[in-house]
Amino acid sequence: MSADGNVLDEVTPELIRRIEAALAEGRTDEVKALLAVLSAPGQAWVLEQVAEPERDALVGLLRRNLDPETLTELDDEVLDDVLDQLDSKDIAAAAHELEADDAANLLDELPEDERREVLAALPADERADIESALAYPEDSAGRLMQRSLVQISDGWNVGQVIDHCREATDLPDDVYDIFVIDPAGRLRGSVPLGRMLRSKRPVPVLDIVDPDIPSVPATATRDEVAHLFRDQNLVSCPVVDEGGRLLGVIMVDDVVDVIDAQAESELMRMGGVGASDMHATTVRTVRLRGLWLGINLLTAVIASLVIGQFEGAIEKIVALAVLMPIVASMGGNAGTQTVTVAVRALAMGELTATNALRFILKEFAVGGLNGIIFAVLMGGAVVIWYQDWRLGAVIGAAMICNLLAAALAGTLIPIGLEKFGVDPAVSSTVFLTTVTDVIGFLAFLGLATLFLL
Amino acid sequence: MSADGNVLDEVTPELIRRIEAALAEGRTDEVKALLAVLSAPGQAWVLEQVAEPERDALVGLLRRNLDPETLTELDDEVLDDVLDQLDSKDIAAAAHELEADDAANLLDELPEDERREVLAALPADERADIESALAYPEDSAGRLMQRSLVQISDGWNVGQVIDHCREATDLPDDVYDIFVIDPAGRLRGSVPLGRMLRSKRPVPVLDIVDPDIPSVPATATRDEVAHLFRDQNLVSCPVVDEGGRLLGVIMVDDVVDVIDAQAESELMRMGGVGASDMHATTVRTVRLRGLWLGINLLTAVIASLVIGQFEGAIEKIVALAVLMPIVASMGGNAGTQTVTVAVRALAMGELTATNALRFILKEFAVGGLNGIIFAVLMGGAVVIWYQDWRLGAVIGAAMICNLLAAALAGTLIPIGLEKFGVDPAVSSTVFLTTVTDVIGFLAFLGLATLFLL
Repeated sequence: MSADGNVLDEVTPELIRRIEAALAEGRTDEVKALLAVLSAPGQAWVLEQVAEPERDALVGLLRRNLDPETLTELDDEVLDDVLDQLDSKDIAAAAHELEADDAANLLDELPEDERREVLAALPADERADIESALAYPEDSAGRLMQRSLVQISDGWNVGQVIDHCREATDLPDDVYDIFVIDPAGRLRGSVPLGRMLRSKRPVPVLDIVDPDIPSVPATATRDEVAHLFRDQNLVSCPVVDEGGRLLGVIMVDDVVDVIDAQAESELMRMGGVGASDMHATTVRTVRLRGLWLGINLLTAVIASLVIGQFEGAIEKIVALAVLMPIVASMGGNAGTQTVTVAVRALAMGELTATNALRFILKEFAVGGLNGIIFAVLMGGAVVIWYQDWRLGAVIGAAMICNLLAAALAGTLIPIGLEKFGVDPAVSSTVFLTTVTDVIGFLAFLGLATLFLL
Repeated sequence: MSADGNVLDEVTPELIRRIEAALAEGRTDEVKALLAVLSAPGQAWVLEQVAEPERDALVGLLRRNLDPETLTELDDEVLDDVLDQLDSKDIAAAAHELEADDAANLLDELPEDERREVLAALPADERADIESALAYPEDSAGRLMQRSLVQISDGWNVGQVIDHCREATDLPDDVYDIFVIDPAGRLRGSVPLGRMLRSKRPVPVLDIVDPDIPSVPATATRDEVAHLFRDQNLVSCPVVDEGGRLLGVIMVDDVVDVIDAQAESELMRMGGVGASDMHATTVRTVRLRGLWLGINLLTAVIASLVIGQFEGAIEKIVALAVLMPIVASMGGNAGTQTVTVAVRALAMGELTATNALRFILKEFAVGGLNGIIFAVLMGGAVVIWYQDWRLGAVIGAAMICNLLAAALAGTLIPIGLEKFGVDPAVSSTVFLTTVTDVIGFLAFLGLATLFLL
């Protein structure tokens, strides 16, 4: 990896120690010099890595010298903290440097009154652009798009386009496609820049346009945009209004951020964390996690109510108490495997009405087969351990019951939640472990009551 | 979403039902016609959605009519099945149409002898390109890169470059950057196509080149490439050999696939599944899942050995058996939250030597605070339920112990595994639940033995 290519090469733990040391000893010029040479992702990295008091001190030192792009790279929790250290004039100066979409995302983090102050401090045209971005919901294509693009009339020829590009001095470097619109502003298609370059000047643009390009309405969600880029391997995609008029363009690097955020969010929800709270304060983390733990406490209490029904059996055969967590835990683990595959397949749109029944039947077969395997293993071990073949048979039968229940619950719960519009990633595991705990304890203790007492 | 923009719009469950019906009734021309109009991702989607016998029948019908790009879009399990249906001539015909990097990935799935047959059936220059791609490890930048790019001499001016592009008829449309090399083939930098277009013909290329562009060595891993694209918001990145000579270019759409695959793999490993086995056969799925369940069985047995040490206490106070799973389960859930945040932060490089201690201390504080909250809640409930304040105190104290243990295990285990080069995503949870089960049962039953008997 080239030295200038990677944030992790640029910002070493060594560099962070030097910044922290210089800060602690009040050598502010050195701190500024160390930060000034960093790229925006590098500066963001430093602000995320240091502790909160140091971060506040760094932001206080930098203020207007903070690269505005740095703000767009920060984790939300860290960004909130950094914005707290800046006054509305500083934030307006940063917003002035940013694209309207990035500026809108920044302003979204501010309280209503501060947002108004920042907007008031901006030139009228920028304010209008940011306000029109803010008019779209936070997770929409309209918010994700940038407004700077090259659009040309469908009556032009290649020579006119090239002259137009040469004359417009404010064109961005990262232009890949030139969009063709009709007199009403409706999107007619696009021409890759490479093709434009290779075509002769008198050729009409309509002769070389790709008319059938994908586009998204400004109201499409980020998830829909990410799906589209993924499925079609896009680098950029035009955004249109209800009338098909060109509004802006979404670039793939913004979509990469969306895909990363989706993946992180899915993992976190499956792990019982709303969002990564790595950078949140202790108190906030306790609150976020506690909610989930409270829900899990209810699940655990339900399971122990089931056990409570069998106190008599446990009193007579205390081995039941020793063995019962094994049955419940195997069901929980097998069900988690199924839920993980199902949740991902639902998120990627791979689990549909077409193959849902086939998926459920396959998981049921997998649960049954693994049930038989682990029934034999565990049943055999119990026979040897306790010298009691009936106890072995009971744990084996309970194991099969619970792995079958895990397969059914692991498929039906996420599919059902998705159907009713509830996020399967966040709620599936809690319902699943309720089922596998209850069925695990019920099957094992119930069969034991029937056959061993 | 425009009708042509989305695989999910293109391939409706309705369409799949029509294809299945036509196939079942032997209307092969209709099947071919329905598939022919689909895009490559659309064809791939159909092959992934139908059951295996129908898939084999579809591939048998299509053979050479299968869009070669379709093969690059398929899930690995489905691809293996499809390749089984094609002979080496068919596969060679497909490889001939594909870029060398995609063809190499295809050939990687074949057994050694069939791969040789396919290579032998290809023209010499294509064979050489594919073989040189195959020489790089499967997860390297060298494999990910494409060889077709526009490279120009550092002695040229803009006019020469434009003439060169006009004359070269085989240039791809998706050129965004033109790479500048010195006479030894070493990368000097790049010029965005848009800037080239706007510059006057006599301007020397070296006047408008970006010299400080990131590049990756061909031996860099996919993970390193994905990090680089993410950190620098790249659309393309040149690949160089040890001598800095330009070998190829990696485009962002291939990196999107890498990022998706990484995210899926992380989620699957955390869920106890090696890789998504959605499309694997039942027997293969049983084998893949069974391994993980076997490891979890050992964990569960260790936990029950701990319980076995307290049989006497449980015999005397059967309520202990009823309540003990609650303590273990709360520890497991709290620890999973911590592990999830830690594993993701390690994967993204956000958890480093700089902030590891701070992270551990924070998690310990979160565990302690949530421990106190749930100790009061659960202890109080037990006092009311069993009318026994000493039992309530014991379960409260055990809860605090176990949530502190969960915080330590949830941070130290993934950090330690990463340090020793073991994948934290796949092994952390199993070690964690061993710790939280053992400490949960030990603390609760041990304190009960000390204070209640």
